[in-house]
Amino acid sequence: MAESVIDPRVLKGFRDFLPAQEAPRRAMLEAVETCFRSFGFLPIDTPALEYAEILLGKGGGETEKQVYRFTDHGGRDVALRFDLTVPFARFVAEHRSDLVFPFKRYHIAKVWRGENTQKGRYREFTQCDFDIVGSNSAAADFEILFMIKESLGAAGAGETTVRINHRALFNRFLDGIGAGDKSVAVLRCVDKLSKIGGDAVREHLEASAGREQCARILEFINARDEGEYGVVLARLVDLCGEGEDTAYLADLHRYLKDSKTGGVVLDPSITRGLDYYTGVVYETFLDKLPAIGSVCSGGRYDNLTALYSKEKTGGVGASIGLDRLQAALEETGAKSAANEKPRAALACLDEKEAGSAQAAASVFRAKGINCEVFFESSKLTRQYILAEKKGIPWVLVKTGESFTLRDIRRRRDIEAADAEKAAGIILQNGLLQS
Amino acid sequence: MAESVIDPRVLKGFRDFLPAQEAPRRAMLEAVETCFRSFGFLPIDTPALEYAEILLGKGGGETEKQVYRFTDHGGRDVALRFDLTVPFARFVAEHRSDLVFPFKRYHIAKVWRGENTQKGRYREFTQCDFDIVGSNSAAADFEILFMIKESLGAAGAGETTVRINHRALFNRFLDGIGAGDKSVAVLRCVDKLSKIGGDAVREHLEASAGREQCARILEFINARDEGEYGVVLARLVDLCGEGEDTAYLADLHRYLKDSKTGGVVLDPSITRGLDYYTGVVYETFLDKLPAIGSVCSGGRYDNLTALYSKEKTGGVGASIGLDRLQAALEETGAKSAANEKPRAALACLDEKEAGSAQAAASVFRAKGINCEVFFESSKLTRQYILAEKKGIPWVLVKTGESFTLRDIRRRRDIEAADAEKAAGIILQNGLLQS
Repeated sequence: MAESVIDPRVLKGFRDFLPAQEAPRRAMLEAVETCFRSFGFLPIDTPALEYAEILLGKGGGETEKQVYRFTDHGGRDVALRFDLTVPFARFVAEHRSDLVFPFKRYHIAKVWRGENTQKGRYREFTQCDFDIVGSNSAAADFEILFMIKESLGAAGAGETTVRINHRALFNRFLDGIGAGDKSVAVLRCVDKLSKIGGDAVREHLEASAGREQCARILEFINARDEGEYGVVLARLVDLCGEGEDTAYLADLHRYLKDSKTGGVVLDPSITRGLDYYTGVVYETFLDKLPAIGSVCSGGRYDNLTALYSKEKTGGVGASIGLDRLQAALEETGAKSAANEKPRAALACLDEKEAGSAQAAASVFRAKGINCEVFFESSKLTRQYILAEKKGIPWVLVKTGESFTLRDIRRRRDIEAADAEKAAGIILQNGLLQS
Repeated sequence: MAESVIDPRVLKGFRDFLPAQEAPRRAMLEAVETCFRSFGFLPIDTPALEYAEILLGKGGGETEKQVYRFTDHGGRDVALRFDLTVPFARFVAEHRSDLVFPFKRYHIAKVWRGENTQKGRYREFTQCDFDIVGSNSAAADFEILFMIKESLGAAGAGETTVRINHRALFNRFLDGIGAGDKSVAVLRCVDKLSKIGGDAVREHLEASAGREQCARILEFINARDEGEYGVVLARLVDLCGEGEDTAYLADLHRYLKDSKTGGVVLDPSITRGLDYYTGVVYETFLDKLPAIGSVCSGGRYDNLTALYSKEKTGGVGASIGLDRLQAALEETGAKSAANEKPRAALACLDEKEAGSAQAAASVFRAKGINCEVFFESSKLTRQYILAEKKGIPWVLVKTGESFTLRDIRRRRDIEAADAEKAAGIILQNGLLQS
């Protein structure tokens, strides 16, 4: 009688990662994390599950529809986090007295959103957030900007362009032309520029702000076409006059020049839609594949902890969307940052020698070679085929103290008098290939 | 009017990790992962959320009560994973044709169980699983055993003792004394030995199996008191006769000797309770703090994928309980594996020099020193205090090309003519301290 089995499958919008995807993914995470730490940023972690009230506030709105929310065994109204910023706000409010400000933290973790699935959109994805809270200095904004460039570079993203703008400047401009009351609608509309195109934006803006205001707004946005940061900034000062915001942007410009940081443009069309940002905002595009959208976004906020504390905590931060970045790198065929160690396998000549085989493999592992041990004493050619299937470039065949190294890709053998020499050959060839 | 705020708090049984806990935690994970990879194990990842049917099977039982289960927006019956083994079974069944066997994988991730909270028990915790599927060789069991020792050593666990037993041997013994039908109750009872003590076990066994069988079972269990692996094994052969299981245990003994692996004892009282193991089982104790319980457990199973596939897939694996391990290391005051890089901070003398400050700090970062940049140009003594609060041992004060290095702990200054020399001093002192 045939027993029925449960169909093995994952939920829509969720993914398994096989080693071929997960290994480069973890290498990217490691590169990003090493970069964050090199700037003195420290790691934190928070629960995946929180009180729904904490995550959603007292309101609800657009976000609520996407959140995985349910009642737990204890009758608590709980939800899975949908980003890392809200839990961070709660974290800072809760642990304020244990933190030293300015507090620089990173948090790399999964978040969940039950949104409609489409290309490159998943219901479970990884965010890499880095924030500085408790400093109002433009130097903090610059550090985040500098880290965006450095961490994406470390992750193997190649050349990138960070597009920055200042929320308060945009709002000051809107106030100046008498459209301050339409700020939310205008920012939301302009945010869609790259998605819906200039004509559609003009149409929407004319509908919401009228023909004359629309023309002025387009003039503001189109300042980005001036090109160089300093020229765009001068044009914006022409349009809006000097202000704290333009002084802030001028400071950033100076810091960029002093540190010889390229690939940053001032783009007054960047608004970050409905986000809670109040100052400088960032979006980052891959020069090889800008169409995939921003792979790292962020900005400055006045008060992170408003929902949970009467003390005000400003800061600035950004978040790398790892899934989009990985998809982009796969599409452009870029080699991941994977600083993969050389791999080898020790052939099995006698199944009863498993103890000395592990001891022999340990010598290679200690030298930085990831060394697998084969268990079945089949013909060597079969073991070579197994190595090839597994993508292992070297098979070690041990005879007494000496080794025959099978170079799987070139189908040739190299003799080595001992483990030391064998390891040297593998390490040298590993270096030559990379 | 005072606005009300939401009380910032986490759910019972859940935890925030501040940098002081999270940094050593990530260092432990990195050490464990590096070890897994050195054995040629590859990483995978699976969704946190799965169909409840996949995770719980068609039955339910004890596990079900602890699982976070709910209905999603699409009306699907879903649950958060409560371990990494069940998702792995589903994964192997689903991707069988894309995997090369024997398949060696690791998976480090969080799992959730809504069980009663008690000391050292959380509702969200991290597991580090490593398994070999598709090999019936005792060499595979030995590799897992060897990896338990190596990975815990890498994580800073100090000396460990792995206690092993063979499920089939225990069952063969029970059959031999006519107690085969009571196997489940007996194994479950014996599994509690370390928790409830010998007297309570005797009482329970007498109640379920009668006085005579109880005496025989205790004789079997007490073989562990013989001490050395070979002597215990000889005693078990006396009690049960030779079998495939004792031959298997003899193979493992040989591999242990050949590889000079110490700290492994044969302990017939280890049963792993109600787990799905069918062969060798492992529990691992810290020599400094055995009372905290097993920090790494596992064993061999006949058929991982029974629920999802008609093809049989045997294997062997183990899982490090990171939270218990970290708690134990904190309790014993053991230094974590954290191969922490030296840390420094660049003092701020002029807020407008943020650009060149980042460029200067980059030189230190590239040399492997995690270098923070301070943003506020307060008095140097205030910046030293900030560094001390943050636990940063060095403050760099840059004048032209030269640096004054403030040694925060020893309250002294060291002069360096350039960044190269300054980095050298920090790296050398870092080495001296560790």
